[in-house]
Amino acid sequence: MQFAERLNNVETSAIRELFKLLGKPGIISFAGGFPDSAMFDVAGIRAATEAALTEEAGGALQYGATEGYQPLREQLAALMSAKGVTGVAPTDLLVTTGSQQALDLLGKTMISPGDKVIVEGPTFLATIQCFRLYGAEVISAPIDDHGVDVEQLEKLIAEHKPKLVYLIPTFGNPSGATLSLERRRKVLELAVKYQTLVVEDDPYGDLYFDAAPPPSLLALSFEVPGSREWLAHCGSLSKVLSPGLRIGWLVAPAELRDRAVMCKQFSDAHTSTFAQATAAQYLRAGHMPATLAKVRAVYAERARAMGAALQRELGDAVSFVAPQGGLFLWVKLTGARGQLQDANVLAQRAIAQGVAFVPGAPFFAQNPDVSTFRLSFATADVAKIEDGIARLGQALRAQA
Amino acid sequence: MQFAERLNNVETSAIRELFKLLGKPGIISFAGGFPDSAMFDVAGIRAATEAALTEEAGGALQYGATEGYQPLREQLAALMSAKGVTGVAPTDLLVTTGSQQALDLLGKTMISPGDKVIVEGPTFLATIQCFRLYGAEVISAPIDDHGVDVEQLEKLIAEHKPKLVYLIPTFGNPSGATLSLERRRKVLELAVKYQTLVVEDDPYGDLYFDAAPPPSLLALSFEVPGSREWLAHCGSLSKVLSPGLRIGWLVAPAELRDRAVMCKQFSDAHTSTFAQATAAQYLRAGHMPATLAKVRAVYAERARAMGAALQRELGDAVSFVAPQGGLFLWVKLTGARGQLQDANVLAQRAIAQGVAFVPGAPFFAQNPDVSTFRLSFATADVAKIEDGIARLGQALRAQA
Repeated sequence: MQFAERLNNVETSAIRELFKLLGKPGIISFAGGFPDSAMFDVAGIRAATEAALTEEAGGALQYGATEGYQPLREQLAALMSAKGVTGVAPTDLLVTTGSQQALDLLGKTMISPGDKVIVEGPTFLATIQCFRLYGAEVISAPIDDHGVDVEQLEKLIAEHKPKLVYLIPTFGNPSGATLSLERRRKVLELAVKYQTLVVEDDPYGDLYFDAAPPPSLLALSFEVPGSREWLAHCGSLSKVLSPGLRIGWLVAPAELRDRAVMCKQFSDAHTSTFAQATAAQYLRAGHMPATLAKVRAVYAERARAMGAALQRELGDAVSFVAPQGGLFLWVKLTGARGQLQDANVLAQRAIAQGVAFVPGAPFFAQNPDVSTFRLSFATADVAKIEDGIARLGQALRAQA
Repeated sequence: MQFAERLNNVETSAIRELFKLLGKPGIISFAGGFPDSAMFDVAGIRAATEAALTEEAGGALQYGATEGYQPLREQLAALMSAKGVTGVAPTDLLVTTGSQQALDLLGKTMISPGDKVIVEGPTFLATIQCFRLYGAEVISAPIDDHGVDVEQLEKLIAEHKPKLVYLIPTFGNPSGATLSLERRRKVLELAVKYQTLVVEDDPYGDLYFDAAPPPSLLALSFEVPGSREWLAHCGSLSKVLSPGLRIGWLVAPAELRDRAVMCKQFSDAHTSTFAQATAAQYLRAGHMPATLAKVRAVYAERARAMGAALQRELGDAVSFVAPQGGLFLWVKLTGARGQLQDANVLAQRAIAQGVAFVPGAPFFAQNPDVSTFRLSFATADVAKIEDGIARLGQALRAQA
């Protein structure tokens, strides 16, 4: 069978290799990119779906508008408004089947084969692959502890004239880094200066531990004239409420949003109205603040425990910035005093010690840094984290 | 903003015009392509989601495998087995976000810009648009009362060497036509002879009124050597259980299915596990046969009422074949005795009389037949059907 040429743009063996690491029984896994199932507010979701099937069964079970179920659009607009994003009306947002679909619709709507896009190096693996499937050449912009290097970004935009720039400005995956306020303004100014679409992927912004992060690019776009017209924002309920609902959303300039709606019509017609009505009832019932507070406290404790264990068990072999939110801790093997500096080798040894994580190289669209790796602190409790990081220390010191 | 070139392949004004017809208050609508909300087994679905959240909340609310939620794959394989499709294991099928996503994944996986695909003339509008978005040139094969003309189809395959042939063999949308058993075998032989993928879209096959239709292409493929390797089958729970769950599935040869899974990973990661677990519980509880019996009886009565009313009210102005299942009645304006023969004109006059339907022309990828139109008998009760068809008769006889 002869398949579409676009499939030649995607190399999935790296992903398959990652997945192989995850399945072994008895292993302590820091490899996942998902929230802890134990955090799900099952009672609240049960009450919400019960309410949806009692009050609006016709709407919840029937075909719905491609743009999204109106009661959910209203709740999502209110959710954003409560976070300081003013001026986004319910009709300004498109409900998507997880924020992954928002990325897919942006690819379908924007990218012709051979177009360039700029992402952070490192960034979310599925974004790189998603855009490559539409024929994009993916360029990597360097980051540091404060997010993407905006001077380098400007040079790359000027040089490559990309179709879009994709960023995870807050608690990035896998980097954990958060873009500073000053750089956020600069990114919006670059969008206007170069008439280049900036995509803000923001699944983790609510998951802060102490102080709130700087305002989202979407919130700031009201202060940077013209930037609204060059900004798309992807939101998600997956990391706090439930990934299984598959509820994300896209806020974008009208001409882009209208085309994304058209593409979505032929992608999946609409997102499950059953899930949308359930999410709308959940948000309307006012459960979200308590759920968020609980999740933040638990993940904060785990992040601190993991950071402390890393310093204790691995010492100067690693460097990292203590995360202020999100799900991930991004680690660099320093190679100090001749210690191991290849995270792929460490990953193999770690499996032998009964602990799994994801090496950093596949997260780079270009110039992979093999000394990096990603740890998720979300799904293991503190005791497991301490045990797992101790095993990681043993793996580091193990003979090859 | 400069959008992707693929958007230039799709003309959506026809669709938008259709939608404008649907929204007027007080109108009797035969325009929809959806089942009657009053048929939904709300109590059964409520019990199913309650069971899912009690017994398997972790699975139902967490991220899941891209291929689908295993308990649902098992139930869907059993559902097909009960219909005589032997030899499809749970792992042979991919759960999709409605069968629309199965079409999207087939397009993404198979179609490079400039590739040709063959569809029935007329066929499902969203299929034409979906494939065109991937750059397909869509060729139309003629149909008659027994489905696609297989001699013409063979000529078109030989001439155009298409990437795939897309058919709705049973109770087609919009034609209502069902491919004969003899022609089904021939289609499978053509797939093997020309090494051409045949896509069987089968959302309506369960909705038969009296005798069961001929076996699906998938069921027959076991009897036609080699045809299994050139057949993809799209199933759906939307027309009998609920469209709002967005549960469809794709059965395809392994090399195609694996690539579709890879594409789905970057399209929406996976279909809502919340909806999948609910559907699995519903099927496992054994509610489907009773639901199906109820739906068949109601739609059969409505189809007969609509056919009788058409003969009574429009007489020799129209010709049609009484549907044996599905949701649609496909009508041709004969133009007999100088009567109106343009369904677009009739649609405008019908709106003035308070009744809506969809003109047939947009359903043709090539050579639109403007004398045709589609009536759905699914969503109006018998009294409304008789009232609506009487209005249609008045519209036919109205002065321009």
